[in-house]
Amino acid sequence: MAITTYCLHHHPLDPPSRRVRLAMGEKALTYDTIIEKPWEPREEYLELNPAGEVPTLVITTDDEEVILGDATAICEFLEETHVGTNLIGKDPVARAEVRRLINWFEHKTYQEVTLLLVGEKAFKKLRGEGQPDSAMIRAGYHNIHGHLDYIGWLAGQRNWLAGDQITLADLAAAAQISAVDYIGDVPWQQHPEAKEWYARIKSRPSFRPLLGDHIPGFLPPETYADLDF
Amino acid sequence: MAITTYCLHHHPLDPPSRRVRLAMGEKALTYDTIIEKPWEPREEYLELNPAGEVPTLVITTDDEEVILGDATAICEFLEETHVGTNLIGKDPVARAEVRRLINWFEHKTYQEVTLLLVGEKAFKKLRGEGQPDSAMIRAGYHNIHGHLDYIGWLAGQRNWLAGDQITLADLAAAAQISAVDYIGDVPWQQHPEAKEWYARIKSRPSFRPLLGDHIPGFLPPETYADLDF
Repeated sequence: MAITTYCLHHHPLDPPSRRVRLAMGEKALTYDTIIEKPWEPREEYLELNPAGEVPTLVITTDDEEVILGDATAICEFLEETHVGTNLIGKDPVARAEVRRLINWFEHKTYQEVTLLLVGEKAFKKLRGEGQPDSAMIRAGYHNIHGHLDYIGWLAGQRNWLAGDQITLADLAAAAQISAVDYIGDVPWQQHPEAKEWYARIKSRPSFRPLLGDHIPGFLPPETYADLDF
Repeated sequence: MAITTYCLHHHPLDPPSRRVRLAMGEKALTYDTIIEKPWEPREEYLELNPAGEVPTLVITTDDEEVILGDATAICEFLEETHVGTNLIGKDPVARAEVRRLINWFEHKTYQEVTLLLVGEKAFKKLRGEGQPDSAMIRAGYHNIHGHLDYIGWLAGQRNWLAGDQITLADLAAAAQISAVDYIGDVPWQQHPEAKEWYARIKSRPSFRPLLGDHIPGFLPPETYADLDF
């Protein structure tokens, strides 16, 4: 039988990378990881992904090597090839809701929250681009409440965000929120419904590798990895 | 036999709306359209799409009504339910490439080009938000060259952008570029390869409804609808 190996090129604070790590964890896949800096990509990485973006998943079997870029393309590929647990549902209407929510979190929440907080406070420092813009950070602090309200509302209606089962929609939301939580900027006390959902997803085995992330020179607060936060 | 009707809520200059219109045209679906202004959504529209975003597709049959938001969710639904011509390919690796490119155009090209040009020159005016920001427009003019080069390079390698057949990747690229072309800002003379690809897609029947768009108070240049541009 052919042995399949997986190698994920990612950055610990990049939300789409986090989504793929969570999806591979939920599917109980064993994989190697290589941390890439998309703002100063290595020559060897540009050969895999000419735009230098993360994540990239390299799947190697005896007779072929498949190189996949883009978190959505990677996650859909793992679903289509039936690798591990189904994370997108079976009914086409339910799957449409999962995909709508993935794009909501990965683009709307990213632009309105994660980019303004993690982008300004963490990536600017990591890239050596100077001081964060305080107007952007204020906007991020303002916007995060609406996004946590929406997560709390969905979780209150549906058990998990897109329905009864955990799906890629939960992982996409957790990818954004956990990156903001790494810098200690999630106002949990004001959002008990979102906190209850996050506590459930944070305690899953798939989350453990993310809770162990330690970016040199940029450590998370103690509550980041604490299951009783 | 159950009759299925489709009603698409969209905005003529919104690229994801354009992608869905092109996809439905390629699939030869007959559908009603309702123009929405996402920046001042009607009460009735908010009932369909609480965020007020476009596009939303309402599919009605004898016994059910399905309401789908988000261009990717809509297009994937039409593929999964095998409506009309396949626009995403069959092999999982080829499908991953289509999806990677869709996200590239719909997010990277949008953020770096369309938002800076169409956002500043058209949507700001339509929303009554004052003068365009000239620094943003300059950045858009600068960035568009790299995106047209990439389109030209892909089309030179592959016939269509993701392979031998036309796919949602071509439609996602055309959705962005055609919105910029509506305001006359595509430097076609400097990008003959991208122009050759655009001339081919522009002459398809699916493109005709887009070429007929006339936003009141904001008409396109004559070359916009001209097949010999």
